[in-house]
Amino acid sequence: MRVDHIGIAVKNLDSAIKYYREGLGLELLRVEEVPKEDIRVAILKAGEVTLELMEPCQNLGVVAKFISKRGEGIHHISFQVESVEDTLRLLKERGVALVDETPRTGAGGRKAAFLHPRASSGVLIELCEREQESGGINSNAG
Amino acid sequence: MRVDHIGIAVKNLDSAIKYYREGLGLELLRVEEVPKEDIRVAILKAGEVTLELMEPCQNLGVVAKFISKRGEGIHHISFQVESVEDTLRLLKERGVALVDETPRTGAGGRKAAFLHPRASSGVLIELCEREQESGGINSNAG
Repeated sequence: MRVDHIGIAVKNLDSAIKYYREGLGLELLRVEEVPKEDIRVAILKAGEVTLELMEPCQNLGVVAKFISKRGEGIHHISFQVESVEDTLRLLKERGVALVDETPRTGAGGRKAAFLHPRASSGVLIELCEREQESGGINSNAG
Repeated sequence: MRVDHIGIAVKNLDSAIKYYREGLGLELLRVEEVPKEDIRVAILKAGEVTLELMEPCQNLGVVAKFISKRGEGIHHISFQVESVEDTLRLLKERGVALVDETPRTGAGGRKAAFLHPRASSGVLIELCEREQESGGINSNAG
């Protein structure tokens, strides 16, 4: 289990990108929309992990709610696992409190699930699967 | 610039260690006291980065203040840099707001400095230098 990314709730994506890219010098990998979550996301490289800056689009989703309640800041830590389903099963056996009993679809179409922050000292923890290497048509089957 | 660790403010270090080690299965590297900051810290490995769980000792330091104001949760992200002094100089030239103009001594005796969260979308960002490989007596000079 390794940290995949850190999700940060921001009010203004463009000025946040400016700070992390021009101020700190991090590489911007891409910007994408996740309509289901009502967010626009900028992904910046910071070593093995990435920062995901998340801006609410229409003040409808959980990120908008987070900002109105707690202000901008770190929203979650995401851990990369081989299989979200298998990990959920294992954690449940160990008595770890879950938000999602089955995977949802996160940014980039990756399977993801949230654990419950009540047992993790207030940290919202996400599990996610590895990003697929490319969108290529050829597979290396065989 | 890569993420070195994520600092998490916790009320009870032992139960937090239990969750992250026995629940999530992360490896506990060590537990140490940082009397100057009035905290006890547990360091857990999560891939290339570590989680630093920080418990206030006597309710005197900034971590105790953070918990009483905001509750438990993620306190800061720390980025590893070659030289904290050189990076502070560079960031100042770029107009990045700083908390520390000169390095302080953090956990493990490493040089560290904090940036100001007002420009970073509410994220408290620390710079730190690489941990020394060992405490060995021999040096490889020459």
